[in-house]
Amino acid sequence: MSTMTAAQQREQAKVAYDAFVAGCPSRQLLDRISDKWVALVLAALADEGTMRFSQLGRRLAGVSQKMLTQTLRSLERDGLVVRSVTPTVPVTVDYTLTPLGESLDELMRGLKAWAEAHMDVVQAARDEYDAR
Amino acid sequence: MSTMTAAQQREQAKVAYDAFVAGCPSRQLLDRISDKWVALVLAALADEGTMRFSQLGRRLAGVSQKMLTQTLRSLERDGLVVRSVTPTVPVTVDYTLTPLGESLDELMRGLKAWAEAHMDVVQAARDEYDAR
Repeated sequence: MSTMTAAQQREQAKVAYDAFVAGCPSRQLLDRISDKWVALVLAALADEGTMRFSQLGRRLAGVSQKMLTQTLRSLERDGLVVRSVTPTVPVTVDYTLTPLGESLDELMRGLKAWAEAHMDVVQAARDEYDAR
Repeated sequence: MSTMTAAQQREQAKVAYDAFVAGCPSRQLLDRISDKWVALVLAALADEGTMRFSQLGRRLAGVSQKMLTQTLRSLERDGLVVRSVTPTVPVTVDYTLTPLGESLDELMRGLKAWAEAHMDVVQAARDEYDAR
């Protein structure tokens, strides 16, 4: 029926993604990536290159083992992180950003830096709001 | 006791914020702003300038009234959005971005655009992962 090429279909699909639309897959993806643990895992891996699970756990102070496992699995499934297993004794498991993960990290790093840079002015706004 | 000027104190405080640290206020702020509804409210207000609550509710398809109320209140408290009440009958309540909100929107808009632009490649990665 359709006379569109695969490239045209992809182009049309790309235009159609709109996170304002509840049922759009990009809404769910935006939800997935809008996450402080995602921001911190990406920033840590971008800083260090390759890290083991235990190193990530130490760098992301306060993260639970379960939350870190879930976050890494989701990042791996979404093609943002590569998990590589080396058959040492015990087995060595490393995590590295993919180029796609690096492209997202550039944005998420901006979010982390924004939070750190604007903490004072946000706190001042909160104090003023709470004093009303 | 301290001989630091206010500017020096601010500078020192700024250096001290580190979202990798569990107890750092910037970790909690990163958590607050890493939110799809925050991204969508900021993008909508940046597009439209000023919007009423009901307009925002329609633009953010699928958002509940409670979630939109909570998100807007938190954005107002953090100094990212101004809520203005005009004493019409019934009362008119409008929301507008502050300059601080605009600065965050530039980042969050990047996140929304990233999700929309990379949905296809993420879906391909998921399909591959799930087929393993």
